[in-house]
Amino acid sequence: MSDYKLSVENLKTTIAEMGERAVIAGRQLALLNTVEKNQCLEVMAAMLEKEKSSILTANQKDVDNGIKNGLSSVMIDRLRLTEKKISDMANGLRQLIGLEDPVGQVLSTCIRPNGLEIKKVSVPIGTIAIIYESRPNVTIDAAGLCLKSGNAVILRGGSESIHSNIALTQCISMACVSAGIDSNAVQLIPWKDREAVSILLKMGQYVDLVIPRGGEQLIRKVVEESTIPVIKHYKGVCNIFVDKNVNFDAAMKVIENAKCQRPGVCNSVEHVLIHNDIADDFAPILAKKLIEKGVELRGDKIFCDMVPSAKQATEQDWYEEYLDLIISIKIVPDIEAAIYHINRYGSKHSDSILTSDKMSAEKFMKEVDSAVIYHNASTRFTDGFEFGMGAEIGISTDKIHARGPMGLKELVSYKYLIYGNGQIRT
Amino acid sequence: MSDYKLSVENLKTTIAEMGERAVIAGRQLALLNTVEKNQCLEVMAAMLEKEKSSILTANQKDVDNGIKNGLSSVMIDRLRLTEKKISDMANGLRQLIGLEDPVGQVLSTCIRPNGLEIKKVSVPIGTIAIIYESRPNVTIDAAGLCLKSGNAVILRGGSESIHSNIALTQCISMACVSAGIDSNAVQLIPWKDREAVSILLKMGQYVDLVIPRGGEQLIRKVVEESTIPVIKHYKGVCNIFVDKNVNFDAAMKVIENAKCQRPGVCNSVEHVLIHNDIADDFAPILAKKLIEKGVELRGDKIFCDMVPSAKQATEQDWYEEYLDLIISIKIVPDIEAAIYHINRYGSKHSDSILTSDKMSAEKFMKEVDSAVIYHNASTRFTDGFEFGMGAEIGISTDKIHARGPMGLKELVSYKYLIYGNGQIRT
Repeated sequence: MSDYKLSVENLKTTIAEMGERAVIAGRQLALLNTVEKNQCLEVMAAMLEKEKSSILTANQKDVDNGIKNGLSSVMIDRLRLTEKKISDMANGLRQLIGLEDPVGQVLSTCIRPNGLEIKKVSVPIGTIAIIYESRPNVTIDAAGLCLKSGNAVILRGGSESIHSNIALTQCISMACVSAGIDSNAVQLIPWKDREAVSILLKMGQYVDLVIPRGGEQLIRKVVEESTIPVIKHYKGVCNIFVDKNVNFDAAMKVIENAKCQRPGVCNSVEHVLIHNDIADDFAPILAKKLIEKGVELRGDKIFCDMVPSAKQATEQDWYEEYLDLIISIKIVPDIEAAIYHINRYGSKHSDSILTSDKMSAEKFMKEVDSAVIYHNASTRFTDGFEFGMGAEIGISTDKIHARGPMGLKELVSYKYLIYGNGQIRT
Repeated sequence: MSDYKLSVENLKTTIAEMGERAVIAGRQLALLNTVEKNQCLEVMAAMLEKEKSSILTANQKDVDNGIKNGLSSVMIDRLRLTEKKISDMANGLRQLIGLEDPVGQVLSTCIRPNGLEIKKVSVPIGTIAIIYESRPNVTIDAAGLCLKSGNAVILRGGSESIHSNIALTQCISMACVSAGIDSNAVQLIPWKDREAVSILLKMGQYVDLVIPRGGEQLIRKVVEESTIPVIKHYKGVCNIFVDKNVNFDAAMKVIENAKCQRPGVCNSVEHVLIHNDIADDFAPILAKKLIEKGVELRGDKIFCDMVPSAKQATEQDWYEEYLDLIISIKIVPDIEAAIYHINRYGSKHSDSILTSDKMSAEKFMKEVDSAVIYHNASTRFTDGFEFGMGAEIGISTDKIHARGPMGLKELVSYKYLIYGNGQIRT
């Protein structure tokens, strides 16, 4: 199915038809009650486990193709499914069952002087398109989150994982049918054509929201082409500022954790700013610790003078999301300079201040313009599960609709229901 | 200033500089307390009143040019300022003083098992671009709403009102300076070049949100070109469904109000659907009433058979936002057909069911996918003031971030503040 190419005209028609089917499925999903949605999630989980071997067979094709096409071993690792990973996906679906239904919540209510009663209630968004790369588990996460929030979803995974994604989506479709739910609730665009994404991104009549998940290039393409609202899950250029009044040991533990515990993720720290008053004492011991952990150090002139083994950072370094055991360190004269630096070079994702001075902490948290701002904690906690959301579709670096980790509550909209007895406007 | 053309390169640099200045001003605005913002609103209002004559002089230029360029009398009316209209603008600013500050509200708070305290607080969005047509009062409304919500704003009005907008923005700038606030909090793009909008819409590094207000063509252009999140204030194709169990007199009063009280606005009704069971009785008397009020009737075949003076409606009619004394009426077999029609042809703005049957009302309100759904009331109430918001920047027909009337609370984002004592992730 995925290997023959469709003409652009055919693609347009076919994707429009998918859009229409998604809208119809979405109308059904919006009316399901919590029990019905949870039953479907359980059936989905069971179906994944039942179909393990066919999923693994499909995945092996992707892995073989990936190796043939020279994908890096990191990429192959992301791509490769195992029995364990499939069980994890199934359990992820089961965890959604226990979470509160985000639909149908009364968000506010009031009675106006003319007697009109206004109720604001949460409703599904409608149809969500999710455009993502490599990891096939996104297929299942997205399907589960969208189902529980009552949204239809159109998935477009990376071409490298296409056989896995088709197998996974087929499982989901079978589960929907068996649970009595429109199987178009979850649809996959199974053609490799890049055109398909461009076409989808113009279909605002069917799709209400686009969530891209992947590298910078993918996000930029989606933002540039989409006429549909996009919530960006952009890069995480996270900073830690070490203030002058600080417990050195605690600060070093936090920085080491934020950099080394899992350097390849968006909430790991990339840059450390050190207050000038403690730099002479703190910078060398921090450097020693990080070097021991295998971290490559880059720094501004002052830092490099203190730590000669560090490489001089370029202007570009301060914008960089290394996603690797690399860190850039800068000595700043005061908290104002730290805030200025973060607001200028950061990505409005997660930043932290390490200080025993509450006033400094409040100032930093107020003035840094980021989704998540920590006082005396590692940036690594920016995550839907760590926030207690129980799930996560991504981390928004936008300020519209959702900011920071996005769970089920961020996947709904609302509408106003107004009860009258013949009111007219005068 | 507005009459010479800048080269595209010059425009790009100049608009980028405006963007940078807006970001800097926005940082200051975000830190202002409620008293400081309210003082500035009072100074703005007083400045408008003080500068009445210079504003009227500038407006006269626009009116003269408009007449010379053959603008319709409706357009000239919208464009023309009077002493009364300027007082109204000033009073609009003063009304904002009494409204609750949307910034700094604690939206939720929790303590995680690891001891991290997570506080979600409302913050300004940052920089908002507002792109609008003809009515110069939008300049002042937008400036006031953005100031109170702590956002910097870049305004781009229609070229037909450029002298008025420059005069009004100058007033606002003087007021900011006199209140000790960065005058770049409110900036106007004063060049007529259409290029300017295209350039602005790509400046996501400075602008966080775009709100277009105007006709369909303007909205489409903005949506197509913008790489910045847009909240659309699209057309209002509002429907009223008259169910079979209904008080005829009350229903007629509501329909007449929704159509005739102010036909040129987005929340007026354009289409009426009548349940077949009462059509024979209700359609002719409704038709008589509407004809008396000067309304042009269009209808489907069944309706036209009942009311021979009605014009046959085309397929296109059901999508139409007439903004005029025209209405299309259709006879539907049941509530399902009404819901289907509205979800297909409506614009997800405001729709109403007139019925004495609570079950029908609940079904309609649940299944119609619109921002505002009424039971036994006129669609004309979809409005920030009628909702008790105390102000309105527009009515969103999107489902992302804000849906329906947008007041101050819809002009903020949030951030997470997380308080720890050295927590690291394991």
